[in-house]
Amino acid sequence: MAGRGFMQWAANCRTVRLDVGLATSEIIVLGQTLCTDLSSFSPTEAEAFYIVVGDSGRELTLDLTKTAPVSLESITPEGTVTFHTVVGHEGDITVSAKNESPEGMGSNGGVTKMVAYISVATPSSKIDDKEVNFLFVDKSGDTIGVATLRMTAFYVSLDVDCDRDGVVEKNNPNKASWKWGPDGHGAILLVNNDCDDYLLEMDPEHKNSKIDGPFDLEDMSRMSVRVRGPDTLPEDCKLRMWVRPDDKERLGIFNLSDIQMLDELGNRHIIGPKAGHLAQISYDLMMAGGTGEGETLFAVEGLKYPDRDFNGTLRIHLSLLKNAAVPVFEDTVMFRLAPWIMTPNTLEPVEAFTCQMKKKENIDFVNDFTKVVEAAGIKLNIVLPYENRGDRWMQDEIELGYSELPGKKPMPVVLDSPRDRGLQKFPKGKLLGPDFGYVTRYDQNEYVNSLDSFGNLEVSPPVKVDGRTYPMGRILLGSAFPTTKYGRRMMRVVRDFLYAQQVQPPVELFSDWLAVGHIDEFMSFVPAAGGKGFRLLLASPAACYNLLRKLKDQGHGDVLCFEGRTRHGESAEKSISDLLDDADLKAESMQCQNDIDWNRDVMKRELGLDEGDIIDLPQLFQLEEGSGAGAYFPDMVNMIVLGKHLGIPKPFGPMIDGECAIETNVRSLLEPLGLTCNFVNDWDSYHLLMGEVHCGSNTRRKPFDFKWWNMSF
Amino acid sequence: MAGRGFMQWAANCRTVRLDVGLATSEIIVLGQTLCTDLSSFSPTEAEAFYIVVGDSGRELTLDLTKTAPVSLESITPEGTVTFHTVVGHEGDITVSAKNESPEGMGSNGGVTKMVAYISVATPSSKIDDKEVNFLFVDKSGDTIGVATLRMTAFYVSLDVDCDRDGVVEKNNPNKASWKWGPDGHGAILLVNNDCDDYLLEMDPEHKNSKIDGPFDLEDMSRMSVRVRGPDTLPEDCKLRMWVRPDDKERLGIFNLSDIQMLDELGNRHIIGPKAGHLAQISYDLMMAGGTGEGETLFAVEGLKYPDRDFNGTLRIHLSLLKNAAVPVFEDTVMFRLAPWIMTPNTLEPVEAFTCQMKKKENIDFVNDFTKVVEAAGIKLNIVLPYENRGDRWMQDEIELGYSELPGKKPMPVVLDSPRDRGLQKFPKGKLLGPDFGYVTRYDQNEYVNSLDSFGNLEVSPPVKVDGRTYPMGRILLGSAFPTTKYGRRMMRVVRDFLYAQQVQPPVELFSDWLAVGHIDEFMSFVPAAGGKGFRLLLASPAACYNLLRKLKDQGHGDVLCFEGRTRHGESAEKSISDLLDDADLKAESMQCQNDIDWNRDVMKRELGLDEGDIIDLPQLFQLEEGSGAGAYFPDMVNMIVLGKHLGIPKPFGPMIDGECAIETNVRSLLEPLGLTCNFVNDWDSYHLLMGEVHCGSNTRRKPFDFKWWNMSF
Repeated sequence: MAGRGFMQWAANCRTVRLDVGLATSEIIVLGQTLCTDLSSFSPTEAEAFYIVVGDSGRELTLDLTKTAPVSLESITPEGTVTFHTVVGHEGDITVSAKNESPEGMGSNGGVTKMVAYISVATPSSKIDDKEVNFLFVDKSGDTIGVATLRMTAFYVSLDVDCDRDGVVEKNNPNKASWKWGPDGHGAILLVNNDCDDYLLEMDPEHKNSKIDGPFDLEDMSRMSVRVRGPDTLPEDCKLRMWVRPDDKERLGIFNLSDIQMLDELGNRHIIGPKAGHLAQISYDLMMAGGTGEGETLFAVEGLKYPDRDFNGTLRIHLSLLKNAAVPVFEDTVMFRLAPWIMTPNTLEPVEAFTCQMKKKENIDFVNDFTKVVEAAGIKLNIVLPYENRGDRWMQDEIELGYSELPGKKPMPVVLDSPRDRGLQKFPKGKLLGPDFGYVTRYDQNEYVNSLDSFGNLEVSPPVKVDGRTYPMGRILLGSAFPTTKYGRRMMRVVRDFLYAQQVQPPVELFSDWLAVGHIDEFMSFVPAAGGKGFRLLLASPAACYNLLRKLKDQGHGDVLCFEGRTRHGESAEKSISDLLDDADLKAESMQCQNDIDWNRDVMKRELGLDEGDIIDLPQLFQLEEGSGAGAYFPDMVNMIVLGKHLGIPKPFGPMIDGECAIETNVRSLLEPLGLTCNFVNDWDSYHLLMGEVHCGSNTRRKPFDFKWWNMSF
Repeated sequence: MAGRGFMQWAANCRTVRLDVGLATSEIIVLGQTLCTDLSSFSPTEAEAFYIVVGDSGRELTLDLTKTAPVSLESITPEGTVTFHTVVGHEGDITVSAKNESPEGMGSNGGVTKMVAYISVATPSSKIDDKEVNFLFVDKSGDTIGVATLRMTAFYVSLDVDCDRDGVVEKNNPNKASWKWGPDGHGAILLVNNDCDDYLLEMDPEHKNSKIDGPFDLEDMSRMSVRVRGPDTLPEDCKLRMWVRPDDKERLGIFNLSDIQMLDELGNRHIIGPKAGHLAQISYDLMMAGGTGEGETLFAVEGLKYPDRDFNGTLRIHLSLLKNAAVPVFEDTVMFRLAPWIMTPNTLEPVEAFTCQMKKKENIDFVNDFTKVVEAAGIKLNIVLPYENRGDRWMQDEIELGYSELPGKKPMPVVLDSPRDRGLQKFPKGKLLGPDFGYVTRYDQNEYVNSLDSFGNLEVSPPVKVDGRTYPMGRILLGSAFPTTKYGRRMMRVVRDFLYAQQVQPPVELFSDWLAVGHIDEFMSFVPAAGGKGFRLLLASPAACYNLLRKLKDQGHGDVLCFEGRTRHGESAEKSISDLLDDADLKAESMQCQNDIDWNRDVMKRELGLDEGDIIDLPQLFQLEEGSGAGAYFPDMVNMIVLGKHLGIPKPFGPMIDGECAIETNVRSLLEPLGLTCNFVNDWDSYHLLMGEVHCGSNTRRKPFDFKWWNMSF
């Protein structure tokens, strides 16, 4: 749909009405033109007119000789004055007059119009100090009428930091537009969804319309209103800042020149949401003009990310109103909301998260996991039972991303899944805080399903596809096929949110074939030497059967897999030959291979990958009763990636020459890429519950060096 | 917001899994490529492979000598086969193989991949009749394994009339996209909102999912599925037509090859809304293949105009599914919904409408109006009291526009206002019918206000503005200023609808200053000789005072205006001098002049007009108690325009030399433009009720010669 065009609610050329014998007062803004149809009020006998410009109050008759020459050409039969263009100029007032009869009409009985245009170059020092007089003369040259226009001139400009250097420019010509790319421009707002005030309740729904101290101000962008002219506006004029009603919940504006003004609820938003009030859409400015450089400073905070019905740009308008209501001048600035950005596995980790369950139930896992995190040299956050409330799926509740303003430190922002199990309160309760933002999307009209978990939400490393670059990669999420009527999908409001961020255009994969239905069950990205700097790892039944067959060919058919492991109270042990001979398992696994291959093909196309960018890790799948597929043994692609250190679910494969043959195979595939394989025992504590290492952990990573506003579309 | 990109749900290059000792069956569509990673299943001792292609079933050993040459280059230390690209080609099967190790990895321990690509040039005549064999040989050249791929090949194409010549092309390369302009392309759908079956209840809500006979079919566009190949698809494959759930209420598809299949409710939509059912989003095709040209013909009807959440384009997909669910091929066509188009006063009238009230209350008006319509030589429709139910405001209930398909007669379509007073049932009850469509927009969450009436909705003639052309003009509608908190506006769903049509981008004017609040109270367009071919007429208090003053100057100060007229039971008569001396009336009128001038300035800018395109008609306004302004005497711009014949509210101005001086003035302004002024007495029957001739009438006009799809953006 063609976006609703930008309607400027005041024309730059404004009609004014004069009359003979009258002095009319008008406000004018520098850069504007006033126009008046002289023929509409010229006396019947008028044959010519003089234009006399200058300061108001002097005797006109005395100055007539000093006026600019007046050209007069013809008089129509009806006595209407018609001229060629005449221009009078004195001091900073410019007047021109133009015959604006329609083409081909001349004076043949149609409308003949003599229109004068008036503009002013410098602001007034007092009300009505600029004057233009139109003196009409008759045939004999006698003055038969004078119409006077008195003007009060202001310089008015609404300004933002359009070139992103931290300084609010003066009337930047680009201030009302926004352009992507390295040669782009446009002011930027952060969604100020962190909480800089520990004394207040956490406020991720952005109903806080206060400034929570200097750190809160740091998250806001600056905007200025600059006015030069008399100290006060002419009577019945107003200077009003306003936004469209659609935008009133998307931003909040504070007047920094007047931040002491709180209402009884402590609100300070002059425009935007106000606790206990309707959101404000307009604000009348107290004039701070004067002949010097009057400037009023504002802080603007973003409150909503781009979304389905919001393209991410906001306009703020400043209008000069006449007769208390009629906009006669308008200035506009544009902001774009900084998007929420995801971080792929190829970015350096900063800190890792996992849950410790009650009664040390998953202590083996936590111990193994801790070693990987220590090897990676980053901070480990262990979420204790009272915080995780029995929910170990740290990957599924949150996705850790960030938002970034030019010249500022990027702000980590957690996206909270609508999933909401035991960890539901963790992101808001523990992550949200100073310089750590929070956002969620939830639709009470939809049921939450397993595909809403963020194990089903990943992002690729930067890629190039058919000449188009995705410098921050592409978001990947699992869905059902659109050809399928009853499939599961991620909640629409979440998908809409992800698409709307624009900078990491999502690719929808097919994950509904899995019982749990998360894309991390069949794929992962790892940083890697050579090639594109990363590899896509895919779970592969074909590779697994290949490996097992080769092991059998080498005479290891009787070696037990999953030695000592149990499943549903029974031994999970099976020999290589038994695995190979299990026709049901093979059929189920190879059906899953088909589904994975479908995703492989889509990723090859949508991420511009070829086979050399993909590594198949041996894996078997089985169909869970009536609900889809699940990993038959610990699902190795479901790993945590911390730089070069991988925390891989320990497969418990056949021990050959004292080593697990599956681990050996995986090492042979990954270690040449410069990666370290750490195998983490998650069999009892995660695998049997249909999850793995990745599901049970989360990672905050460094932001991209690439700045999102430099992206080209 | 970056539109959610088009996700093709099947890759054109598809991964297949083969194995030694196995024959694998696959379906393939012409134009597709199958790819298989040979290294993933080659025997450990393999050092090279042969590719043997051809019809299935022959003895491989016999044909070995006939195979394409096989190039073999190096063997890695691990024994993996690595080749440069080799190509085998026989008959219509093409096979190539390529080393796809990642750049810089070579055989240094990373993954080395030999990938084969297979495509087919002609459709199969029976299942599995195309065959490719990969023969692996060891060092000594002995065959140590064969993997066989058997393919069934189909030609499949979903086709539309992309070049708009009335014929569905075969696989037009542009069929999945849409381009505006004279060099554009793309199929078009009409919103089929007329009612071609008088036996059924009128069905403007589009719940009718039947074909109402041949005239209904005429309003639909054609779409074909063309298939060549075996008579049936391989087992477990399906050919499914589908649309996104968002689009399911926006279109209806009929299978013309199978239109006898009705369900118990008589539904025939195979995709789209179905009475008594969920709307259908997919449809599995019965195969009509065969070696000949199998073709299944569909008729597609549009059901919704472009709107806020709908950019007007629809995609229909055809997917080939494997394993009953997995899309392995996809074809897509795009349609754009023909927009609803308004007709400006400069287009020739076809028929006029007005209401006759009970007890012949407005008989004088109807008589005068009839004369104007007769002079214009068009049909007059008089809506009788039982139909108008006491509502005389024919302009306000409906707007008459049209929609157009290439090569078809444009279809008139009435837009029904949410206003809904006495005339509420008229558009659906009397206008909707064969080849006369109906559309409405209403939001039960909003209150209807006077600005929702379509006297507040007009369209300009074609204009050019700063190099941009609007070949069908721009829609004009009245609003409150966005700077005003409590102003009236047209209902959002109606405004959204108007903006979404795209081809006549709206301009919002300021009409909230008027008590009734309709733009037709201060403006009208007339066709005119010279200039741009039209003039904008504006109501003008300034022009009126000018005229009255001149009349007084000429000695007519004592002449009565509004002679014999009454207002609220009292005489309305007033002399010219009394009018001029009425300071309140002047102040109120000149305030209205200011508001009209604001609109003048916005139209000059948004429609690219200059003063010569504008004619000021004398008019006075007064403030109605507490509610805004209204015309003080019959509001002449509120006229009906029927070609050169204008039906102008009779002003009852001062009679001078036996003629109304106001009429004389208006004639002097308009008649030189080639227009005929017919003054219609609406004083008692409309003017005193705050409306005029335009409010009490409506006009259906000829469509533009210009075709909307030729518009450039």
